[in-house]
Amino acid sequence: MNFSSKLIEQAVNAFAMLPGIGRKTALRLVLHLIKQDKNTTESFADAIVKMRQQIKHCKDCHHLSDAEICSICADTRRDKTLIMVVETIRDVMAIEETNQYRGLYHVLGGVISPIEGVSPYDLNLTTLLKRVSPTVKADGSEAPSAVKELIMAISPTIEGDTTIYYISKQLMNKKIKVSTLSRGISFGGELEYADEMTLGRSIVGRVPYKNNP
Amino acid sequence: MNFSSKLIEQAVNAFAMLPGIGRKTALRLVLHLIKQDKNTTESFADAIVKMRQQIKHCKDCHHLSDAEICSICADTRRDKTLIMVVETIRDVMAIEETNQYRGLYHVLGGVISPIEGVSPYDLNLTTLLKRVSPTVKADGSEAPSAVKELIMAISPTIEGDTTIYYISKQLMNKKIKVSTLSRGISFGGELEYADEMTLGRSIVGRVPYKNNP
Repeated sequence: MNFSSKLIEQAVNAFAMLPGIGRKTALRLVLHLIKQDKNTTESFADAIVKMRQQIKHCKDCHHLSDAEICSICADTRRDKTLIMVVETIRDVMAIEETNQYRGLYHVLGGVISPIEGVSPYDLNLTTLLKRVSPTVKADGSEAPSAVKELIMAISPTIEGDTTIYYISKQLMNKKIKVSTLSRGISFGGELEYADEMTLGRSIVGRVPYKNNP
Repeated sequence: MNFSSKLIEQAVNAFAMLPGIGRKTALRLVLHLIKQDKNTTESFADAIVKMRQQIKHCKDCHHLSDAEICSICADTRRDKTLIMVVETIRDVMAIEETNQYRGLYHVLGGVISPIEGVSPYDLNLTTLLKRVSPTVKADGSEAPSAVKELIMAISPTIEGDTTIYYISKQLMNKKIKVSTLSRGISFGGELEYADEMTLGRSIVGRVPYKNNP
């Protein structure tokens, strides 16, 4: 593309660097900003730079946070006996959207994948083990961890299952319940369109019918 | 969406303000920037703020420009006898992409549209008339304008045709040729899929066959 302006070209290149934004879309965004007044562009840029400079990862659960401890971990009304183990930050947001869960989270940052070169040491596992281990008090005695259950909300793939297996092995000696999300046919989905694997597993893993679910 | 972070929420809102970017896409862009190092985000923001603060409109042709006069108007190798009149900056870019035109441009900033409340006074017409008028020299004598032809590269719509008619009326007393882009069936298009209007007009406006086009 011929921009006849270095400034436009640099701004287009900046936008086009973002995922899913090509040079035509980038140009449309730049021309949109030119139509707005200068303050709009400045506050747009400010919000992004400020976010990038100040955003932290919660040192307990590794979720994105404005402070050292994220607002979920800091919320005293949440159930501290439950930790949901997820792959990414987006998973936390998706689960929060459901409004079905009031426990805490732990963001692994991925799953074990030898093909992609992700080993258990690349995941946030040390902090997870620390969270479920007894804390040593000042007098040397141990206080048991508040956590009673880990819910593995990991993608139902080979890598995901490997990760769940690895973590459950690490927790063998600890008195902690490990559960996974239920798997089966989707709500509102038509049986005939479910894939064979899902349908097969949902038959094997059938549950007793409850009249009042 | 529940972001559990004010910083993320503000950055997502900033991106979502752009045209064609929803909140889900905005979140994807924000999470992408968090994965990059801080300098990437800063240079991204810098390029955009700098562009918005320093970009000008060429005072001759109203195209976007880094200086008072844009690089097209300032280019001495271009044909100053030709001015192509276009609606928007994007049209200039599209025509420059063809590499078929070596004259100058004039960006109107729109077309006359009573429905959308765009009158001739909202368009960049004063400067266009000035460009095609004789210049008065220091000794009071008049030097004829260098411009010999105006090419109307305006959309073939009712509003576009009205605009072309209006401009040609304004230029009646001036010895300037006014032409429009040729209209007809598209190159590489199949005849049967051309719309009736285009096909009908291309029959009325048929041209003599040249063996060596």
